[in-house]
Amino acid sequence: MISMGFPTSGPTVADVGELGTIDAIIAAAPSRINGDDAAVLHHASPNSRTVATTDMLVEGRHFNPAWTTPYQVGRKAIVQNFADIEAMGARPLAALLAISAPETTPLAVIEGLAEGIGARCEEYAAELVGGDLTGGEHLVISVTAIGSLGGNLPELALDQARIGQRVVAHGKIGYSGAGLALLAAGIDVPEQLHPLIHAHQAPELTPGRGVIARSARATAMTDNSDGLCHDLGTIARRSGVGINLSSVAIAPDALLKEAGTLLDVDPWEWVLSSGEDHTLLATTSGQAPSGFRSIGQVVKGQGVTIDNRPPKYGQGWQSF
Amino acid sequence: MISMGFPTSGPTVADVGELGTIDAIIAAAPSRINGDDAAVLHHASPNSRTVATTDMLVEGRHFNPAWTTPYQVGRKAIVQNFADIEAMGARPLAALLAISAPETTPLAVIEGLAEGIGARCEEYAAELVGGDLTGGEHLVISVTAIGSLGGNLPELALDQARIGQRVVAHGKIGYSGAGLALLAAGIDVPEQLHPLIHAHQAPELTPGRGVIARSARATAMTDNSDGLCHDLGTIARRSGVGINLSSVAIAPDALLKEAGTLLDVDPWEWVLSSGEDHTLLATTSGQAPSGFRSIGQVVKGQGVTIDNRPPKYGQGWQSF
Repeated sequence: MISMGFPTSGPTVADVGELGTIDAIIAAAPSRINGDDAAVLHHASPNSRTVATTDMLVEGRHFNPAWTTPYQVGRKAIVQNFADIEAMGARPLAALLAISAPETTPLAVIEGLAEGIGARCEEYAAELVGGDLTGGEHLVISVTAIGSLGGNLPELALDQARIGQRVVAHGKIGYSGAGLALLAAGIDVPEQLHPLIHAHQAPELTPGRGVIARSARATAMTDNSDGLCHDLGTIARRSGVGINLSSVAIAPDALLKEAGTLLDVDPWEWVLSSGEDHTLLATTSGQAPSGFRSIGQVVKGQGVTIDNRPPKYGQGWQSF
Repeated sequence: MISMGFPTSGPTVADVGELGTIDAIIAAAPSRINGDDAAVLHHASPNSRTVATTDMLVEGRHFNPAWTTPYQVGRKAIVQNFADIEAMGARPLAALLAISAPETTPLAVIEGLAEGIGARCEEYAAELVGGDLTGGEHLVISVTAIGSLGGNLPELALDQARIGQRVVAHGKIGYSGAGLALLAAGIDVPEQLHPLIHAHQAPELTPGRGVIARSARATAMTDNSDGLCHDLGTIARRSGVGINLSSVAIAPDALLKEAGTLLDVDPWEWVLSSGEDHTLLATTSGQAPSGFRSIGQVVKGQGVTIDNRPPKYGQGWQSF
C-alpha cells in the first residue's frame, strides 16, 4: 500500500497556538531531556567526542506534499541526518527540530512529522531533544543530529580511502530515484514496485551499521545522498585516489529493471546518479563489515569508474 | 552610524552555484572541522556533557532586510543560540548553519551572514563547523549551537529557582524592543539613540557569563528572548515559585526614556514585554556573579510581580 498526501483540514497551528503545537510535538516524540533553554545530553561512554550535522527540507523541493505523508517526511529527515552521523562511524544520540510553518498548516501535519521523527529516533535509541517553531510562508524543516564517537579509533573521514582497499555498501542503491520517477510519472504503480516508492518516501537503513564499520576498521565512509558516483567521487577526490566499481555488484536488480521498462528509463541512471538512498559507502582493508557488501576497489588514479570505464551517468543533485 | 539594508545586486548564489556558495561561507567562517559528512567536536575537559539548541530565522519575520545587514543577522543568530547554551551554564563550542535561499539571492547576502556568524563565533572561541544549503522561496536561516558542560555542578535548569534567592541579570533589558520601535517608526533617529538600534540589530553580550554564573552556584537561568516577564514567568512556573522584581533595579534608563518620549511610548513596555535582548537571567543564593546585577527576589507565590504588584505589561512573543 502506498500512503501519500498531507492532511489539508482539521485544526491549524494557529488554532492551537504556538504552545499547543509544541505540546503536540512533544507528545508525539517525547523526551525527558526536552524543555529547557538547551538540551543536555549524556554520553554513554566516557571521553566520547560529539558529532553533529544538519539538513534542511523545503516543501516542494525536498518533499512533495502530494507524494508523501508528514510521518514519512519525519522518518526521512531522521534517516538522512543520522546517516551523516553514522558515516563518521558514530552513534546517533539526539535530534533537534526547527520548523517554519504557515499559520494555516493543519496541526495534523506537524503531529505526523513529529511522530515520524519520534518513531525513527526510537529505532536508533535516540531522542528528539529540542527545537524551534516559527511562522513562515512555506513549510521548512531543519533537523540537526548529534551523535557520539566513543573509543580511540579515528572517525571515518572522507580523505581516508587508500589504494588497494575494498569499497563496501550497506543499503539499497537507486531505489529512491526509481521511486521518485514512478511517483512523478503519475501512473498506477504495480504493487510489486511499491518498495521503490517506499524507499523514496523514507529509506529504511538498519541503525548502527556505521559503528559496526568503524569497529571493523573501515577507514573512509560517506552516505549516498547526492548520487553514487557523486558521493564516491567526493571520497576519491578528498583521498587522492580513484574508485573502480564492479558493474556486477551494483547492477540494477529485478525491481529497478521492471521500473525502468515501465517508464522507458535506463535503470543504471538511478543506480549511478540518483541520490537520497543514504546507502552507507565505506572503504576498508579487511572484509566487508557485517551488513555490508563489496561493490568495488580503491585504485590509483582519480574519479569513479565502472569496470575501469567512465560511468554512463554521474551527475548528482545540485541545489542551485 | 546605523548600517542597514541587504545587498540587492552583484552575482547571485545561482551564478556561483551551490559549491561556490559553500566555498564563500567557509572562507567567511573558516574551521578545520568543517567539510565531512558530520563535524567531530573535541571537548576541552574530559567527561563533559554536550548541550544543544536550535533557532530558525525567517526573512520578514525575525529580521527585516531593510532594517539590518546580513552581517548583523549572522551575529544575532549566534548570540541568540549561544545565549541558550550559556543559559544552561555551558560554554558554546560550535554552530551549524542551514540556509534556504532563493536562487536570486546575491552571494554578498550569504557572505555577510557567514562573516557575522564567523566573527561572533570567534568572540566565543567557537567555530562554524557545518551546515546545509538549499534553494527556497524565502531566506530561512537555521542555526544550531552546541556547547560543553564540564565539571560536576548541575546544569542551570528552569525549575531550580528557590524561595529567598536573588534574581540577577547580565545584559541590557528593553533595548532591543526600543530599537525595533525606532526602526519601525521610520524617523531620523538621533545619534545618541543609535545604541538601541544596534541592540536590536545584534545584541552584544559578553561571552562566558553563563559559565561564570554556574561556577558562582547560580541554580536556575534563562535568557530574555520573549520578554522579561514572559521568560522569568517560565522560571517561576517551572520552579513553583514567584518572582518579585525591584522597579528601581529594572527602571528604564535615560536612553529608553528618551526613545519613549520621542515615540510617545511608555518605555516600561519595552522593559517588561519586549524580547530579543538575550539578557541572562539567573537565580542564586549567593551574591550576584561577576557581570550580573540584582534585579529582584524569588518569593513564595506564583508569576512575576514588580514591587509586589502585577506588571503593567507582560505579553511576550508568540509565533502564531
